[in-house]
Amino acid sequence: MLIKMRPDATADEVKAVETKLVGLGFKTGKMVGEAITLIGVYGDITRLPVEEIEELAGVEQLIPISRAYKRVAQKGAPDRPIYQTVSIGKVVCGGDELVVVAGPCSVESESQIMEAARLVRDAGAQILRGGVVKYRSSPYSGWEGLGSSDTDSLRKGLALIVKAGREFGLPTAVEILDPADVPVYEDAGVDCIQIGEPNSKNQALLNRLRTTPLPVIHKRGNSLDTEAYLLWVERMMTGGKENVIVCERGIASQNRYTRNTLDVGSIAAFRYQLTGLPVAVDASHATGIRDLVHPATLSGIIAGASVVLVESHPNPLIAKSDGFQGLFPEQLRALVEASRETWELRKRLDRRYLPSAALEKDYLARMDADRARFFGKR
Amino acid sequence: MLIKMRPDATADEVKAVETKLVGLGFKTGKMVGEAITLIGVYGDITRLPVEEIEELAGVEQLIPISRAYKRVAQKGAPDRPIYQTVSIGKVVCGGDELVVVAGPCSVESESQIMEAARLVRDAGAQILRGGVVKYRSSPYSGWEGLGSSDTDSLRKGLALIVKAGREFGLPTAVEILDPADVPVYEDAGVDCIQIGEPNSKNQALLNRLRTTPLPVIHKRGNSLDTEAYLLWVERMMTGGKENVIVCERGIASQNRYTRNTLDVGSIAAFRYQLTGLPVAVDASHATGIRDLVHPATLSGIIAGASVVLVESHPNPLIAKSDGFQGLFPEQLRALVEASRETWELRKRLDRRYLPSAALEKDYLARMDADRARFFGKR
Amino acid sequence: MLIKMRPDATADEVKAVETKLVGLGFKTGKMVGEAITLIGVYGDITRLPVEEIEELAGVEQLIPISRAYKRVAQKGAPDRPIYQTVSIGKVVCGGDELVVVAGPCSVESESQIMEAARLVRDAGAQILRGGVVKYRSSPYSGWEGLGSSDTDSLRKGLALIVKAGREFGLPTAVEILDPADVPVYEDAGVDCIQIGEPNSKNQALLNRLRTTPLPVIHKRGNSLDTEAYLLWVERMMTGGKENVIVCERGIASQNRYTRNTLDVGSIAAFRYQLTGLPVAVDASHATGIRDLVHPATLSGIIAGASVVLVESHPNPLIAKSDGFQGLFPEQLRALVEASRETWELRKRLDRRYLPSAALEKDYLARMDADRARFFGKR
Amino acid sequence: MLIKMRPDATADEVKAVETKLVGLGFKTGKMVGEAITLIGVYGDITRLPVEEIEELAGVEQLIPISRAYKRVAQKGAPDRPIYQTVSIGKVVCGGDELVVVAGPCSVESESQIMEAARLVRDAGAQILRGGVVKYRSSPYSGWEGLGSSDTDSLRKGLALIVKAGREFGLPTAVEILDPADVPVYEDAGVDCIQIGEPNSKNQALLNRLRTTPLPVIHKRGNSLDTEAYLLWVERMMTGGKENVIVCERGIASQNRYTRNTLDVGSIAAFRYQLTGLPVAVDASHATGIRDLVHPATLSGIIAGASVVLVESHPNPLIAKSDGFQGLFPEQLRALVEASRETWELRKRLDRRYLPSAALEKDYLARMDADRARFFGKR
Repeated sequence: MLIKMRPDATADEVKAVETKLVGLGFKTGKMVGEAITLIGVYGDITRLPVEEIEELAGVEQLIPISRAYKRVAQKGAPDRPIYQTVSIGKVVCGGDELVVVAGPCSVESESQIMEAARLVRDAGAQILRGGVVKYRSSPYSGWEGLGSSDTDSLRKGLALIVKAGREFGLPTAVEILDPADVPVYEDAGVDCIQIGEPNSKNQALLNRLRTTPLPVIHKRGNSLDTEAYLLWVERMMTGGKENVIVCERGIASQNRYTRNTLDVGSIAAFRYQLTGLPVAVDASHATGIRDLVHPATLSGIIAGASVVLVESHPNPLIAKSDGFQGLFPEQLRALVEASRETWELRKRLDRRYLPSAALEKDYLARMDADRARFFGKR
Repeated sequence: MLIKMRPDATADEVKAVETKLVGLGFKTGKMVGEAITLIGVYGDITRLPVEEIEELAGVEQLIPISRAYKRVAQKGAPDRPIYQTVSIGKVVCGGDELVVVAGPCSVESESQIMEAARLVRDAGAQILRGGVVKYRSSPYSGWEGLGSSDTDSLRKGLALIVKAGREFGLPTAVEILDPADVPVYEDAGVDCIQIGEPNSKNQALLNRLRTTPLPVIHKRGNSLDTEAYLLWVERMMTGGKENVIVCERGIASQNRYTRNTLDVGSIAAFRYQLTGLPVAVDASHATGIRDLVHPATLSGIIAGASVVLVESHPNPLIAKSDGFQGLFPEQLRALVEASRETWELRKRLDRRYLPSAALEKDYLARMDADRARFFGKR
Repeated sequence: MLIKMRPDATADEVKAVETKLVGLGFKTGKMVGEAITLIGVYGDITRLPVEEIEELAGVEQLIPISRAYKRVAQKGAPDRPIYQTVSIGKVVCGGDELVVVAGPCSVESESQIMEAARLVRDAGAQILRGGVVKYRSSPYSGWEGLGSSDTDSLRKGLALIVKAGREFGLPTAVEILDPADVPVYEDAGVDCIQIGEPNSKNQALLNRLRTTPLPVIHKRGNSLDTEAYLLWVERMMTGGKENVIVCERGIASQNRYTRNTLDVGSIAAFRYQLTGLPVAVDASHATGIRDLVHPATLSGIIAGASVVLVESHPNPLIAKSDGFQGLFPEQLRALVEASRETWELRKRLDRRYLPSAALEKDYLARMDADRARFFGKR
Repeated sequence: MLIKMRPDATADEVKAVETKLVGLGFKTGKMVGEAITLIGVYGDITRLPVEEIEELAGVEQLIPISRAYKRVAQKGAPDRPIYQTVSIGKVVCGGDELVVVAGPCSVESESQIMEAARLVRDAGAQILRGGVVKYRSSPYSGWEGLGSSDTDSLRKGLALIVKAGREFGLPTAVEILDPADVPVYEDAGVDCIQIGEPNSKNQALLNRLRTTPLPVIHKRGNSLDTEAYLLWVERMMTGGKENVIVCERGIASQNRYTRNTLDVGSIAAFRYQLTGLPVAVDASHATGIRDLVHPATLSGIIAGASVVLVESHPNPLIAKSDGFQGLFPEQLRALVEASRETWELRKRLDRRYLPSAALEKDYLARMDADRARFFGKR
């Protein structure tokens, strides 16, 4: 962290800031320019009391120069990152196998979710998804999920998907909307809680999930920058929670054709630069167009995702919600197969991936010679 | 609503859709093209069971041609809209007077909120704002509000701002984060509940607020289109709730300089085209820069806002949160005064505002003559 | 195209619009609702004189229901699209082989471009890129390319890259900035003209390029919607020009971490739905971060691209422009190899790609039975 | 400017960077942390050879801490900025009077532009606008302006608007598309050249305009950040050109309702923080909706604009282009009148505008006392 002092800050004020920082256990550095003095702060920046510092006399601005999300952040050397795994039921995410989470947008009836689960299992996916309370952008859509009327309906709805999952050997992942419902999900035997896009910055919900033992798939809010999102993920992890999966599902943009814009650059950044957590891609919500889910999912995998979220339905033409993006069963089978092949390719290619950290030293050493060669400069 | 049939839809399928619609009480029209048949649906579209229609054989897509937010929507003729008012305590929003809601980002201590309230009253603002539980984009900011630890701390924090408001004759508006806290806010004597930007699409919270008697200021989510936002507002109103204020507080964009982008086009659209609800502008969060709050607030008023939300602090240099955007007391006074003058101007100008509806008939009648005059065409 | 009439349009006005359309050779349909009359227009919509129709009495709005970019648009049935190829020199784009266009951001000296070309050839790329006049977002960057001072310098700069390309058997692709320079590029022996992002909507340049025999890579403007961009591409093709390659290079968004946001959803849409033209991906400009170019490029290929644009440099640490995104030679080799493997995978997977058009008929037929099964409905 | 050294930079490399900078005439500072060394550069940063520095061994990144657009940048103290004026013909922009530039999207015929000019004059606007070659997002719109076929048609079209302007005592502002046309505009007697949004980053055009004596209105590209745009404006001014007007006309965003999003925050920043150049607002293109042009224009004025661009037409219902946003003559009159009143108000309010620079010293002095008062801290 850099502290930029005001142009009119006095030497005493600068001194006071340094004293304060040292008193808090940080090391400091200083650079005095004609107009601006900068104070560097070294140590565990997450412990820095930002407000207290900002309120010190003479302080103009705090300029971060390293990352603020310590728990989310990738560990290990830049060319040898350490990745962690998260288990959903018996299924390991972020490990050697690609994990596909598939199922209908919403649990519509017992027979529908049983049939959906069977098709998910037959397609080779490992985890069953399905909403019991549903986000709807219009209050007039007429369907907010089997569990939307009260806690009892929520319990019954969750029981249906858990039953379907167990019948076909699939752990289940279900979206949550209300912090008060966390114990209901835990008791119902759900294997993973999902935070949908509209709740990505729901502070009360994220705070509540700090203490659930269940793994959480946390979808990125569609207006959040790559790193701003990771700070919201970090929130859940501050109490020690570790079993979190980050998920890119499309960001808002000027695009009209697709519903959102799948941000594979962030997927790649999550995987290769920013975090060791498993990375999921949800191309169903990102594109909103059934026939683009296939290529967009594969692009997420090759860019860095190890978990795929996809909506599928026994007959999407009669789905009560998101019918335009749910895959037909044949498409789900094709997608799981293609995803696996893409994943195998990425694993092979990853071994040959060359981060700059492994090369820069050599090229730094050659810089003078190269300059002379190309520009005749010494 | 238009229903676009698939190219391969049979005459029987088209017939079945029409029969279904008539059975539901709608009137229908039909247009049969070479490749595409369109069925028009007339009547109260909010009652249309969208999913049921989408699942009918042969239906490809529903194309909305009129607005889906009936309760939010502006009533009256285009050139004679009807506006409604919302009372916060004794203060009437959306009426003849501009309403300024001011106060610190967060309630920090009893002496701070008392001093803040005094300054708000002295500046001429009518409502006191102040957060008791605070959104923070980083979990390490070190301050989430006096009321963030438990329900008891929330009660005590709310009591402080209510006390300060009563001392200085100011109704209070306080942000809520968790649906479970609604009764706590109601019991504390808060006069208005505020939904912050990160909760704009929090379905559980919006559903819960359907039944509170307290007025609600609902801030627009920063990735929501103008009308998509109104659908989220409509959600709260579906049960009959009427005392809602819409609020533009900046949208996410490629801009770096300001924190968000204040969308005055939407403010103007809310006021002059889309809704009769009172419209608020929050330029503090939109710009994130103290010295831009003044011009940006005025631009919101002249564009159509009748309520101003603004952060102010007895000494923003020591504020525990949002210190960069809180106004100094002198700036608050200047802003309230300037806002009032801008409001008086807008009221005068509104009387001379000429919507096209009042003119089009004449120009339609002149079209042939004008074409002849300019283009020599008959 | 649908024509929405004003609420107050008279029967005579509706009649006049229909008569006008029939007179122009179109077929029409009509749907009369309580408040709104819609007129459908059938035929070659690109021939519709939009302004003339808009100016007819009673017309409120034209609502497009099919695509306006006829030449760009994909030909063939939805499940059997027809793809076309574009040759750059001897290299065929959009055919059976993946094409990699690589080279430095700018031609800096003869020895630099010769060395760069050698490395491009050795890495297995087929086309050499390199700017002779360069876009720079700041006028103070101190380098706008060898050819930026006048036409003579442009000629000399172009000669260098053409020489380097010929030496190593690589056709060349060079960006153009000024319509007046088209003949200079043609005469210099450049094999392909590139339109950079800032010129994506440069009407004068696009109009001028209608008549060049050289193939053109047209990069998408970073604020253009998927289909709005295709209309700008269509502009070049209206005179009969066919050798155009579309290119996604990142769009502007709220993202801060990457320079732009690579939109693979649009790449997939170009390939699988919207056009038969070859599709290129430029992950160097999309991400702006050297170590993300590799995964982001692969994601573009698997999503639908058949041409890769990538910046590489003999020693990017001394590059005069875009030094942070240029690949080291070893990285270029690794990328070309990985790209080829990804391409081979995609060709295999493409054969198993299942567009909905091939499945919908069956599921339409099952809709009633499935509804009965899941919802007990008849 | 800060130079961030690589973690592995040696002491010799750091030394070499400092030596280089001193050799170039800059002063330097240094801060050595545990992991990162930062070197500060002081002096005229626009003279810093960025590429050369970036290529020095051990340099990781250059971090700007002050503005790069020296000529565009506001001069004077923060609380006493200096504003400059730009004359278009006899009309002074950025001075004591609000300037309204009005007229049709395009010059359609002699009688049309004469009538349009008369109405512009009668409404009280001071400058006549009108396109002779027109941007069209579709090549099939059927109308690209009277001057679009060749240089001769351009000359004739320009002559029409110049004639109309002179007849009614109005200087003229006309958009340019091709750098080659600059002398044609100069010779035709046009009083001001306009750069449209799609050309905002057209480097060849901007470079060419460096030497025209005509004033230029430079519209902001709809994907450009506030300050990134100013760097493109700076480009034109680097050779000494001073008569430039900046213009906000809406940015691309996720909004669907309005065509673009009018960014009043940037208008306020241009006026109160970033530049001394006159600031224009174009609400016609920003909103794309006739009935929103009025409120949005006023919001631009109160936020900081001193020039208004607005499309008007004798009968917009028959306009060949942009017919949905052109004002009816009565609306133009109402807008000019309302704009003047808003301007008079802003001039009054500006005198009472309180930038923080005028207050901070006092509040800095009170910080300790206030902290003690509110938080019981010493």
